[in-house]
Amino acid sequence: MFYLIGLGLGDPKDVTVKGLEIIKKCDRVYLESYTSILTCGQTALEEFYGRSLILADRELVEQGADDILAGANTHDVALLVVGDPFGATTHTDFILRAKEKGIPFQVVHNASILNAAGCCGLQLYSFGETISIPYWDDTWKPDSFYDKIKMNRDNNLHTLCLLDIKVKEPTLESLTKKKREYMPPRFMSVNEAAVQLLEILKKKRSEGIADEDLAYTEKSLCIGLSRVGHESQQIVACSMLEMVQSDLGAPLHSLIIPAEKLHPLEEEYVALFKK
Amino acid sequence: MFYLIGLGLGDPKDVTVKGLEIIKKCDRVYLESYTSILTCGQTALEEFYGRSLILADRELVEQGADDILAGANTHDVALLVVGDPFGATTHTDFILRAKEKGIPFQVVHNASILNAAGCCGLQLYSFGETISIPYWDDTWKPDSFYDKIKMNRDNNLHTLCLLDIKVKEPTLESLTKKKREYMPPRFMSVNEAAVQLLEILKKKRSEGIADEDLAYTEKSLCIGLSRVGHESQQIVACSMLEMVQSDLGAPLHSLIIPAEKLHPLEEEYVALFKK
Repeated sequence: MFYLIGLGLGDPKDVTVKGLEIIKKCDRVYLESYTSILTCGQTALEEFYGRSLILADRELVEQGADDILAGANTHDVALLVVGDPFGATTHTDFILRAKEKGIPFQVVHNASILNAAGCCGLQLYSFGETISIPYWDDTWKPDSFYDKIKMNRDNNLHTLCLLDIKVKEPTLESLTKKKREYMPPRFMSVNEAAVQLLEILKKKRSEGIADEDLAYTEKSLCIGLSRVGHESQQIVACSMLEMVQSDLGAPLHSLIIPAEKLHPLEEEYVALFKK
Repeated sequence: MFYLIGLGLGDPKDVTVKGLEIIKKCDRVYLESYTSILTCGQTALEEFYGRSLILADRELVEQGADDILAGANTHDVALLVVGDPFGATTHTDFILRAKEKGIPFQVVHNASILNAAGCCGLQLYSFGETISIPYWDDTWKPDSFYDKIKMNRDNNLHTLCLLDIKVKEPTLESLTKKKREYMPPRFMSVNEAAVQLLEILKKKRSEGIADEDLAYTEKSLCIGLSRVGHESQQIVACSMLEMVQSDLGAPLHSLIIPAEKLHPLEEEYVALFKK
Protein backbone atom coordinates (compact mmCIF):
# COMPACT_ATOMS: atom_id res chain seq x y z
CA MET A 1 0.00 0.00 0.00
CA PHE A 2 1.14 3.54 -0.78
CA TYR A 3 0.22 6.08 1.87
CA LEU A 4 0.16 9.82 1.35
CA ILE A 5 0.08 11.33 4.82
CA GLY A 6 -0.48 14.95 5.80
CA LEU A 7 1.57 16.07 8.80
CA GLY A 8 -0.34 19.25 9.57
CA LEU A 9 1.48 22.47 10.25
CA GLY A 10 3.11 22.80 13.63
CA ASP A 11 5.16 20.12 15.35
CA PRO A 12 5.52 16.31 15.35
CA LYS A 13 2.37 15.85 17.46
CA ASP A 14 0.21 17.40 14.74
CA VAL A 15 0.22 14.10 12.88
CA THR A 16 -3.07 12.24 13.29
CA VAL A 17 -3.25 9.03 15.31
CA LYS A 18 -4.09 7.22 12.06
CA GLY A 19 -1.10 8.77 10.33
CA LEU A 20 1.27 7.88 13.17
CA GLU A 21 0.18 4.23 13.22
CA ILE A 22 0.85 3.96 9.50
CA ILE A 23 4.24 5.71 9.74
CA LYS A 24 5.35 3.24 12.40
CA LYS A 25 4.44 0.15 10.37
CA CYS A 26 5.77 1.19 6.95
CA ASP A 27 8.86 -0.32 5.38
CA ARG A 28 10.00 2.99 3.91
CA VAL A 29 8.88 6.48 4.85
CA TYR A 30 9.77 9.52 2.75
CA LEU A 31 9.55 13.11 3.96
CA GLU A 32 8.73 15.55 1.18
CA SER A 33 10.86 18.60 1.83
CA TYR A 34 10.51 21.12 -0.95
CA THR A 35 6.91 22.32 -1.25
CA SER A 36 6.75 23.17 2.46
CA ILE A 37 8.61 22.66 5.74
CA LEU A 38 7.68 21.99 9.35
CA THR A 39 8.99 24.42 11.94
CA CYS A 40 10.32 21.51 13.99
CA GLY A 41 12.62 19.92 11.40
CA GLN A 42 13.37 16.32 10.38
CA THR A 43 15.24 15.18 13.50
CA ALA A 44 12.37 16.04 15.83
CA LEU A 45 10.04 14.04 13.56
CA GLU A 46 12.37 11.01 13.54
CA GLU A 47 12.68 11.09 17.31
CA PHE A 48 8.93 11.30 17.77
CA TYR A 49 8.18 8.52 15.26
CA GLY A 50 11.02 6.36 16.58
CA ARG A 51 12.24 5.66 13.06
CA SER A 52 14.34 7.14 10.29
CA LEU A 53 12.91 9.08 7.37
CA ILE A 54 14.23 9.37 3.84
CA LEU A 55 14.40 13.01 2.79
CA ALA A 56 12.59 13.47 -0.52
CA ASP A 57 13.86 16.60 -2.20
CA ARG A 58 12.64 18.09 -5.43
CA GLU A 59 14.74 15.84 -7.63
CA LEU A 60 13.58 12.67 -5.93
CA VAL A 61 9.91 13.66 -5.86
CA GLU A 62 9.75 14.93 -9.44
CA GLN A 63 12.09 12.48 -11.13
CA GLY A 64 12.32 9.57 -8.73
CA ALA A 65 8.65 8.79 -8.26
CA ASP A 66 9.26 5.27 -9.54
CA ASP A 67 11.87 4.72 -6.82
CA ILE A 68 9.51 5.99 -4.12
CA LEU A 69 6.65 3.80 -5.35
CA ALA A 70 8.87 0.74 -5.92
CA GLY A 71 7.55 -2.31 -4.13
CA ALA A 72 4.49 -0.53 -2.76
CA ASN A 73 2.21 -3.24 -4.14
CA THR A 74 3.71 -5.77 -1.74
CA HIS A 75 5.17 -3.49 0.98
CA ASP A 76 3.97 -0.43 2.84
CA VAL A 77 5.50 2.85 1.71
CA ALA A 78 4.56 6.31 2.92
CA LEU A 79 5.23 9.80 1.64
CA LEU A 80 4.85 12.44 4.35
CA VAL A 81 3.74 15.88 3.30
CA VAL A 82 3.53 19.05 5.37
CA GLY A 83 -0.07 20.27 5.63
CA ASP A 84 -2.65 18.30 3.66
CA PRO A 85 -1.62 15.86 0.90
CA PHE A 86 -3.67 17.66 -1.74
CA GLY A 87 -2.01 21.03 -1.17
CA ALA A 88 0.42 20.58 -4.08
CA THR A 89 -0.04 19.31 -7.63
CA THR A 90 2.95 17.03 -7.24
CA HIS A 91 1.13 14.91 -4.70
CA THR A 92 -1.99 14.50 -6.82
CA ASP A 93 0.32 13.36 -9.58
CA PHE A 94 1.77 10.73 -7.23
CA ILE A 95 -1.63 9.15 -6.69
CA LEU A 96 -2.18 9.01 -10.45
CA ARG A 97 1.14 7.21 -10.89
CA ALA A 98 0.25 4.74 -8.13
CA LYS A 99 -3.10 4.13 -9.89
CA GLU A 100 -1.34 3.51 -13.20
CA LYS A 101 0.92 0.94 -11.59
CA GLY A 102 -2.02 -0.78 -9.90
CA ILE A 103 -0.68 0.13 -6.45
CA PRO A 104 -3.41 0.55 -3.81
CA PHE A 105 -3.20 3.87 -1.96
CA GLN A 106 -4.64 5.65 1.04
CA VAL A 107 -4.64 9.35 1.87
CA VAL A 108 -4.53 10.68 5.44
CA HIS A 109 -5.76 14.26 5.58
CA ASN A 110 -4.57 16.97 7.92
CA ALA A 111 -4.74 20.70 8.46
CA SER A 112 -3.36 22.88 5.70
CA ILE A 113 -2.65 26.60 5.67
CA LEU A 114 -5.74 26.91 3.47
CA ASN A 115 -8.02 26.20 6.43
CA ALA A 116 -5.69 27.02 9.34
CA ALA A 117 -5.49 30.59 8.01
CA GLY A 118 -8.83 30.98 9.77
CA CYS A 119 -6.82 31.46 12.99
CA CYS A 120 -6.63 35.20 12.22
CA GLY A 121 -10.41 35.42 12.61
CA LEU A 122 -11.35 35.91 8.97
CA GLN A 123 -14.17 33.63 7.88
CA LEU A 124 -12.91 30.86 5.62
CA TYR A 125 -16.04 31.13 3.47
CA SER A 126 -15.15 34.70 2.61
CA PHE A 127 -11.86 33.88 0.93
CA GLY A 128 -11.60 34.10 -2.83
CA GLU A 129 -8.97 32.44 -4.99
CA THR A 130 -5.69 31.72 -3.22
CA ILE A 131 -2.60 33.20 -4.86
CA SER A 132 1.12 32.45 -4.80
CA ILE A 133 3.68 35.23 -4.69
CA PRO A 134 6.98 34.17 -6.27
CA TYR A 135 10.40 35.66 -5.53
CA TRP A 136 11.35 38.25 -8.10
CA ASP A 137 14.80 38.68 -9.54
CA ASP A 138 16.33 41.45 -11.63
CA THR A 139 14.74 40.33 -14.85
CA TRP A 140 11.72 38.28 -13.83
CA LYS A 141 8.96 40.14 -11.99
CA PRO A 142 5.66 38.35 -12.64
CA ASP A 143 2.62 40.09 -11.14
CA SER A 144 -0.37 38.32 -12.65
CA PHE A 145 -1.56 37.54 -9.12
CA TYR A 146 -2.37 41.25 -8.74
CA ASP A 147 -5.49 40.80 -10.90
CA LYS A 148 -6.68 37.99 -8.66
CA ILE A 149 -6.31 40.16 -5.56
CA LYS A 150 -8.25 42.84 -7.42
CA MET A 151 -11.00 40.41 -8.34
CA ASN A 152 -11.26 39.17 -4.77
CA ARG A 153 -11.34 42.69 -3.35
CA ASP A 154 -13.94 43.78 -5.92
CA ASN A 155 -16.12 40.96 -4.63
CA ASN A 156 -15.33 41.74 -1.00
CA LEU A 157 -13.36 38.53 -0.54
CA HIS A 158 -10.14 37.89 1.36
CA THR A 159 -6.98 36.77 -0.44
CA LEU A 160 -4.60 34.24 1.05
CA CYS A 161 -1.12 34.76 -0.39
CA LEU A 162 1.16 31.74 -0.24
CA LEU A 163 4.76 32.91 -0.20
CA ASP A 164 7.56 31.46 -2.26
CA ILE A 165 9.84 28.71 -1.00
CA LYS A 166 13.12 28.03 -2.74
CA VAL A 167 14.76 24.85 -1.56
CA LYS A 168 17.59 23.14 -3.41
CA GLU A 169 17.48 25.52 -6.36
CA PRO A 170 20.52 25.00 -8.57
CA THR A 171 22.68 28.10 -8.98
CA LEU A 172 22.62 29.64 -12.45
CA GLU A 173 26.35 29.03 -12.85
CA SER A 174 26.06 25.33 -12.04
CA LEU A 175 23.36 24.66 -14.63
CA THR A 176 25.99 24.25 -17.31
CA LYS A 177 28.32 22.22 -15.10
CA LYS A 178 28.29 18.54 -14.40
CA LYS A 179 28.12 18.99 -10.67
CA ARG A 180 25.04 20.86 -9.51
CA GLU A 181 25.52 23.49 -6.83
CA TYR A 182 22.60 24.76 -4.86
CA MET A 183 21.59 28.13 -3.49
CA PRO A 184 20.89 28.39 0.22
CA PRO A 185 17.16 27.79 0.95
CA ARG A 186 14.98 30.90 0.95
CA PHE A 187 11.52 31.36 2.40
CA MET A 188 9.68 34.56 1.54
CA SER A 189 8.73 36.61 4.59
CA VAL A 190 5.62 38.76 4.89
CA ASN A 191 7.77 41.88 4.70
CA GLU A 192 9.44 40.71 1.48
CA ALA A 193 5.98 40.00 0.08
CA ALA A 194 4.78 43.46 1.10
CA VAL A 195 7.76 45.07 -0.65
CA GLN A 196 6.89 43.31 -3.92
CA LEU A 197 3.19 44.13 -3.55
CA LEU A 198 4.03 47.82 -3.09
CA GLU A 199 6.32 47.74 -6.10
CA ILE A 200 3.37 46.53 -8.18
CA LEU A 201 1.39 49.54 -6.89
CA LYS A 202 4.01 51.90 -8.26
CA LYS A 203 3.83 50.20 -11.63
CA LYS A 204 0.02 50.34 -11.71
CA ARG A 205 0.07 54.04 -10.82
CA SER A 206 2.64 54.71 -13.52
CA GLU A 207 0.20 53.08 -15.94
CA GLY A 208 -2.30 55.73 -14.92
CA ILE A 209 -4.53 53.69 -12.62
CA ALA A 210 -6.20 55.89 -10.01
CA ASP A 211 -5.97 55.00 -6.33
CA GLU A 212 -9.66 54.15 -6.06
CA ASP A 213 -9.28 51.59 -8.83
CA LEU A 214 -6.28 49.84 -7.31
CA ALA A 215 -6.65 46.42 -5.68
CA TYR A 216 -5.02 47.83 -2.53
CA THR A 217 -2.89 50.75 -1.40
CA GLU A 218 -0.14 51.33 1.18
CA LYS A 219 -2.89 51.90 3.74
CA SER A 220 -4.77 48.65 3.11
CA LEU A 221 -5.02 46.31 6.05
CA CYS A 222 -3.05 43.14 5.73
CA ILE A 223 -2.42 40.25 8.07
CA GLY A 224 0.90 38.49 8.43
CA LEU A 225 1.02 34.96 9.80
CA SER A 226 4.07 32.93 10.70
CA ARG A 227 4.51 29.33 11.83
CA VAL A 228 0.74 28.74 11.99
CA GLY A 229 -0.16 25.83 14.25
CA HIS A 230 3.20 25.90 16.06
CA GLU A 231 3.37 27.26 19.60
CA SER A 232 5.57 30.10 18.33
CA GLN A 233 2.85 31.18 15.88
CA GLN A 234 2.63 34.95 15.31
CA ILE A 235 -0.13 37.02 13.75
CA VAL A 236 0.16 40.73 12.99
CA ALA A 237 -2.50 42.99 11.48
CA CYS A 238 -1.31 46.34 10.12
CA SER A 239 -1.20 48.44 6.97
CA MET A 240 0.73 47.08 4.02
CA LEU A 241 3.28 49.87 4.46
CA GLU A 242 3.82 48.87 8.09
CA MET A 243 4.10 45.22 7.04
CA VAL A 244 7.31 46.14 5.20
CA GLN A 245 8.89 46.88 8.60
CA SER A 246 7.49 43.82 10.36
CA ASP A 247 9.57 40.90 11.57
CA LEU A 248 7.61 37.71 12.12
CA GLY A 249 10.65 35.55 12.69
CA ALA A 250 11.45 32.13 11.27
CA PRO A 251 9.54 30.63 8.29
CA LEU A 252 6.97 29.76 7.05
CA HIS A 253 5.09 33.00 6.53
CA SER A 254 1.75 33.68 4.84
CA LEU A 255 0.09 36.97 4.06
CA ILE A 256 -3.60 37.77 3.89
CA ILE A 257 -5.10 40.76 2.15
CA PRO A 258 -8.57 41.00 3.69
CA ALA A 259 -11.68 42.21 1.95
CA GLU A 260 -12.36 45.94 2.26
CA LYS A 261 -15.40 45.42 4.48
CA LEU A 262 -15.15 42.92 7.32
CA HIS A 263 -17.95 41.18 9.20
CA PRO A 264 -18.27 42.65 12.73
CA LEU A 265 -17.04 39.39 14.25
CA GLU A 266 -14.04 39.39 11.91
CA GLU A 267 -13.38 43.02 12.81
CA GLU A 268 -13.39 42.20 16.50
CA TYR A 269 -11.13 39.19 16.11
CA VAL A 270 -8.60 40.81 13.79
CA ALA A 271 -8.34 43.74 16.23
CA LEU A 272 -6.63 41.34 18.64
CA PHE A 273 -3.62 41.33 16.32
CA LYS A 274 -3.24 45.07 15.80
CA LYS A 275 -0.37 46.73 17.60
CA MET B 1 -6.99 26.48 29.67
CA PHE B 2 -9.73 26.33 27.05
CA TYR B 3 -8.94 24.09 24.10
CA LEU B 4 -10.68 24.20 20.76
CA ILE B 5 -9.79 20.95 19.03
CA GLY B 6 -10.45 19.93 15.46
CA LEU B 7 -11.30 16.25 15.00
CA GLY B 8 -10.78 16.05 11.27
CA LEU B 9 -13.29 14.33 9.06
CA GLY B 10 -13.31 10.57 9.13
CA ASP B 11 -13.11 8.42 12.24
CA PRO B 12 -11.79 8.65 15.82
CA LYS B 13 -8.18 8.13 14.71
CA ASP B 14 -8.25 11.33 12.66
CA VAL B 15 -7.65 13.35 15.82
CA THR B 16 -4.05 14.55 16.07
CA VAL B 17 -1.69 13.13 18.67
CA LYS B 18 -1.63 16.60 20.27
CA GLY B 19 -5.43 16.74 20.33
CA LEU B 20 -5.74 13.28 21.84
CA GLU B 21 -3.31 14.06 24.67
CA ILE B 22 -5.32 17.15 25.56
CA ILE B 23 -8.66 15.33 25.39
CA LYS B 24 -7.38 12.72 27.82
CA LYS B 25 -6.21 15.24 30.41
CA CYS B 26 -9.18 17.64 30.37
CA ASP B 27 -11.70 17.92 33.19
CA ARG B 28 -14.61 18.42 30.83
CA VAL B 29 -14.79 17.69 27.13
CA TYR B 30 -17.68 18.90 24.96
CA LEU B 31 -18.49 17.54 21.52
CA GLU B 32 -20.04 20.14 19.25
CA SER B 33 -22.78 18.36 17.33
CA TYR B 34 -24.73 20.74 15.18
CA THR B 35 -22.47 22.41 12.60
CA SER B 36 -21.15 19.03 11.42
CA ILE B 37 -21.02 15.35 12.36
CA LEU B 38 -18.48 12.57 12.19
CA THR B 39 -19.44 9.43 10.31
CA CYS B 40 -18.41 7.33 13.30
CA GLY B 41 -20.69 8.86 15.97
CA GLN B 42 -20.20 9.83 19.61
CA THR B 43 -19.91 6.33 21.13
CA ALA B 44 -16.97 5.38 18.92
CA LEU B 45 -15.22 8.59 19.96
CA GLU B 46 -15.81 7.93 23.66
CA GLU B 47 -14.51 4.39 23.35
CA PHE B 48 -11.40 5.53 21.55
CA TYR B 49 -10.67 8.39 23.98
CA GLY B 50 -11.51 6.22 26.99
CA ARG B 51 -13.66 8.97 28.48
CA SER B 52 -17.15 10.42 28.31
CA LEU B 53 -18.06 13.45 26.24
CA ILE B 54 -20.73 16.06 26.89
CA LEU B 55 -22.84 16.56 23.77
CA ALA B 56 -22.99 20.26 22.93
CA ASP B 57 -26.04 20.91 20.81
CA ARG B 58 -27.04 24.19 19.24
CA GLU B 59 -28.72 25.54 22.37
CA LEU B 60 -25.74 24.80 24.57
CA VAL B 61 -23.17 26.20 22.14
CA GLU B 62 -25.09 29.36 21.27
CA GLN B 63 -26.65 30.15 24.63
CA GLY B 64 -24.61 28.17 27.12
CA ALA B 65 -21.11 29.38 26.22
CA ASP B 66 -20.67 30.63 29.77
CA ASP B 67 -21.39 27.13 31.10
CA ILE B 68 -18.89 25.57 28.72
CA LEU B 69 -16.18 28.10 29.61
CA ALA B 70 -16.93 27.99 33.34
CA GLY B 71 -13.81 27.25 35.36
CA ALA B 72 -11.54 27.12 32.31
CA ASN B 73 -9.15 29.60 33.93
CA THR B 74 -8.27 27.04 36.61
CA HIS B 75 -9.25 23.75 34.92
CA ASP B 76 -8.79 22.27 31.46
CA VAL B 77 -11.89 22.32 29.29
CA ALA B 78 -12.06 21.27 25.65
CA LEU B 79 -14.62 21.79 22.90
CA LEU B 80 -14.27 19.25 20.09
CA VAL B 81 -15.29 20.31 16.64
CA VAL B 82 -15.58 18.21 13.49
CA GLY B 83 -13.09 19.37 10.84
CA ASP B 84 -11.03 22.43 11.73
CA PRO B 85 -11.99 24.74 14.62
CA PHE B 86 -12.23 27.81 12.38
CA GLY B 87 -14.72 26.23 10.01
CA ALA B 88 -17.72 27.88 11.69
CA THR B 89 -18.33 31.40 12.99
CA THR B 90 -19.60 30.01 16.28
CA HIS B 91 -16.16 28.72 17.18
CA THR B 92 -14.39 31.98 16.44
CA ASP B 93 -16.93 33.60 18.73
CA PHE B 94 -15.98 31.15 21.46
CA ILE B 95 -12.37 32.27 21.40
CA LEU B 96 -13.46 35.90 21.67
CA ARG B 97 -15.54 35.07 24.73
CA ALA B 98 -12.63 33.22 26.32
CA LYS B 99 -10.44 36.28 25.61
CA GLU B 100 -12.98 38.59 27.25
CA LYS B 101 -13.02 36.43 30.35
CA GLY B 102 -9.23 36.32 30.49
CA ILE B 103 -9.23 32.56 29.90
CA PRO B 104 -6.12 31.29 28.09
CA PHE B 105 -6.88 29.21 25.04
CA GLN B 106 -5.21 26.93 22.52
CA VAL B 107 -6.40 25.80 19.12
CA VAL B 108 -5.55 22.41 17.61
CA HIS B 109 -6.02 22.44 13.86
CA ASN B 110 -7.13 19.54 11.70
CA ALA B 111 -8.34 18.75 8.21
CA SER B 112 -11.53 20.43 7.08
CA ILE B 113 -13.67 19.78 4.04
CA LEU B 114 -12.26 23.03 2.65
CA ASN B 115 -8.89 21.39 2.05
CA ALA B 116 -9.87 17.71 2.02
CA ALA B 117 -12.09 18.47 -0.98
CA GLY B 118 -8.84 18.25 -2.92
CA CYS B 119 -9.29 14.46 -2.82
CA CYS B 120 -11.33 14.69 -6.02
CA GLY B 121 -8.24 15.90 -7.85
CA LEU B 122 -9.23 19.54 -8.37
CA GLN B 123 -6.48 21.94 -7.38
CA LEU B 124 -7.27 23.73 -4.13
CA TYR B 125 -5.79 26.96 -5.50
CA SER B 126 -8.37 26.99 -8.26
CA PHE B 127 -11.38 27.19 -5.97
CA GLY B 128 -13.28 30.45 -5.69
CA GLU B 129 -15.59 31.46 -2.89
CA THR B 130 -17.18 28.54 -1.02
CA ILE B 131 -20.96 28.56 -0.88
CA SER B 132 -23.60 27.01 1.37
CA ILE B 133 -26.79 25.54 -0.07
CA PRO B 134 -29.65 25.68 2.42
CA TYR B 135 -32.70 23.41 2.47
CA TRP B 136 -35.64 25.07 0.77
CA ASP B 137 -39.20 24.85 1.99
CA ASP B 138 -42.49 25.77 0.35
CA THR B 139 -42.12 29.48 0.99
CA TRP B 140 -38.38 30.05 1.47
CA LYS B 141 -36.18 29.37 -1.57
CA PRO B 142 -33.07 31.54 -1.28
CA ASP B 143 -30.74 31.33 -4.28
CA SER B 144 -28.22 34.13 -3.82
CA PHE B 145 -25.44 31.53 -3.94
CA TYR B 146 -26.18 31.14 -7.66
CA ASP B 147 -24.43 34.45 -8.36
CA LYS B 148 -21.33 33.22 -6.56
CA ILE B 149 -21.23 30.05 -8.65
CA LYS B 150 -21.60 32.28 -11.72
CA MET B 151 -18.76 34.53 -10.60
CA ASN B 152 -16.51 31.53 -9.93
CA ARG B 153 -17.33 29.94 -13.28
CA ASP B 154 -16.81 33.24 -15.11
CA ASN B 155 -13.32 33.28 -13.62
CA ASN B 156 -12.73 29.60 -14.34
CA LEU B 157 -12.76 28.67 -10.64
CA HIS B 158 -14.27 25.67 -8.90
CA THR B 159 -17.09 26.07 -6.38
CA LEU B 160 -17.29 23.98 -3.24
CA CYS B 161 -20.91 23.76 -2.09
CA LEU B 162 -21.40 22.95 1.58
CA LEU B 163 -24.75 21.29 2.04
CA ASP B 164 -27.26 22.09 4.74
CA ILE B 165 -27.41 20.29 8.06
CA LYS B 166 -30.50 20.52 10.22
CA VAL B 167 -29.98 19.11 13.67
CA LYS B 168 -32.31 19.75 16.59
CA GLU B 169 -34.49 22.18 14.69
CA PRO B 170 -37.68 22.93 16.65
CA THR B 171 -40.90 22.07 14.82
CA LEU B 172 -42.95 25.08 13.75
CA GLU B 173 -45.85 23.94 15.91
CA SER B 174 -43.71 23.69 19.04
CA LEU B 175 -42.36 27.24 18.74
CA THR B 176 -45.44 28.57 20.49
CA LYS B 177 -45.52 25.80 23.08
CA LYS B 178 -43.62 25.57 26.32
CA LYS B 179 -42.12 22.23 25.47
CA ARG B 180 -39.95 22.28 22.38
CA GLU B 181 -40.30 19.41 19.96
CA TYR B 182 -37.64 18.74 17.40
CA MET B 183 -37.66 17.59 13.80
CA PRO B 184 -35.61 14.53 12.90
CA PRO B 185 -32.08 15.52 11.80
CA ARG B 186 -31.61 16.13 8.09
CA PHE B 187 -28.43 16.24 6.05
CA MET B 188 -28.65 17.45 2.49
CA SER B 189 -27.47 14.91 -0.06
CA VAL B 190 -25.75 15.74 -3.35
CA ASN B 191 -28.87 14.67 -5.23
CA GLU B 192 -31.09 16.99 -3.18
CA ALA B 193 -28.62 19.79 -3.85
CA ALA B 194 -28.67 19.02 -7.58
CA VAL B 195 -32.49 19.17 -7.60
CA GLN B 196 -32.43 22.66 -6.07
CA LEU B 197 -29.67 23.82 -8.41
CA LEU B 198 -31.69 22.66 -11.42
CA GLU B 199 -34.79 24.41 -10.11
CA ILE B 200 -32.80 27.66 -10.05
CA LEU B 201 -31.93 27.04 -13.72
CA LYS B 202 -35.61 26.90 -14.59
CA LYS B 203 -36.18 30.18 -12.83
CA LYS B 204 -33.24 31.87 -14.56
CA ARG B 205 -34.46 30.66 -17.95
CA SER B 206 -37.96 31.93 -17.19
CA GLU B 207 -36.34 35.31 -16.53
CA GLY B 208 -35.03 35.16 -20.09
CA ILE B 209 -31.41 34.28 -19.41
CA ALA B 210 -29.89 32.40 -22.35
CA ASP B 211 -28.13 29.08 -21.81
CA GLU B 212 -24.71 30.48 -22.66
CA ASP B 213 -25.10 33.08 -19.90
CA LEU B 214 -26.11 30.62 -17.20
CA ALA B 215 -23.67 29.66 -14.43
CA TYR B 216 -24.23 26.01 -15.33
CA THR B 217 -26.69 23.78 -17.15
CA GLU B 218 -28.04 20.25 -16.76
CA LYS B 219 -25.00 19.04 -18.69
CA SER B 220 -22.38 20.72 -16.48
CA LEU B 221 -19.94 18.42 -14.78
CA CYS B 222 -20.31 18.21 -11.04
CA ILE B 223 -18.60 16.12 -8.41
CA GLY B 224 -20.37 14.59 -5.46
CA LEU B 225 -18.39 13.65 -2.36
CA SER B 226 -19.59 11.76 0.68
CA ARG B 227 -17.95 10.92 4.00
CA VAL B 228 -14.63 12.44 2.92
CA GLY B 229 -11.72 11.07 4.95
CA HIS B 230 -13.68 8.03 6.12
CA GLU B 231 -12.88 4.63 4.64
CA SER B 232 -16.38 4.53 3.14
CA GLN B 233 -15.69 7.78 1.23
CA GLN B 234 -17.35 8.01 -2.19
CA ILE B 235 -16.67 10.36 -5.08
CA VAL B 236 -18.78 10.55 -8.23
CA ALA B 237 -18.25 12.80 -11.23
CA CYS B 238 -21.19 13.20 -13.62
CA SER B 239 -23.51 15.76 -15.15
CA MET B 240 -25.74 17.74 -12.83
CA LEU B 241 -28.76 15.98 -14.29
CA GLU B 242 -27.23 12.59 -13.54
CA MET B 243 -26.36 13.77 -10.03
CA VAL B 244 -30.10 13.99 -9.31
CA GLN B 245 -30.22 10.19 -9.64
CA SER B 246 -27.08 9.49 -7.64
CA ASP B 247 -27.00 7.84 -4.25
CA LEU B 248 -23.86 8.49 -2.27
CA GLY B 249 -25.14 6.92 0.93
CA ALA B 250 -24.94 8.21 4.49
CA PRO B 251 -24.02 11.86 5.31
CA LEU B 252 -22.13 14.14 5.12
CA HIS B 253 -22.21 15.08 1.46
CA SER B 254 -20.55 17.94 -0.40
CA LEU B 255 -20.93 19.01 -3.99
CA ILE B 256 -18.38 20.63 -6.26
CA ILE B 257 -19.17 22.53 -9.42
CA PRO B 258 -15.84 22.58 -11.26
CA ALA B 259 -14.60 25.35 -13.49
CA GLU B 260 -15.50 24.97 -17.16
CA LYS B 261 -11.91 24.33 -18.19
CA LEU B 262 -9.85 21.90 -16.13
CA HIS B 263 -6.07 21.59 -15.94
CA PRO B 264 -4.94 18.38 -17.74
CA LEU B 265 -3.90 16.83 -14.41
CA GLU B 266 -7.31 17.67 -12.92
CA GLU B 267 -8.98 16.21 -15.99
CA GLU B 268 -7.05 12.98 -15.61
CA TYR B 269 -7.77 12.66 -11.90
CA VAL B 270 -11.47 13.53 -12.08
CA ALA B 271 -11.88 10.94 -14.86
CA LEU B 272 -11.23 8.28 -12.19
CA PHE B 273 -14.62 9.11 -10.69
CA LYS B 274 -16.71 9.01 -13.84
CA LYS B 275 -18.93 6.01 -14.32
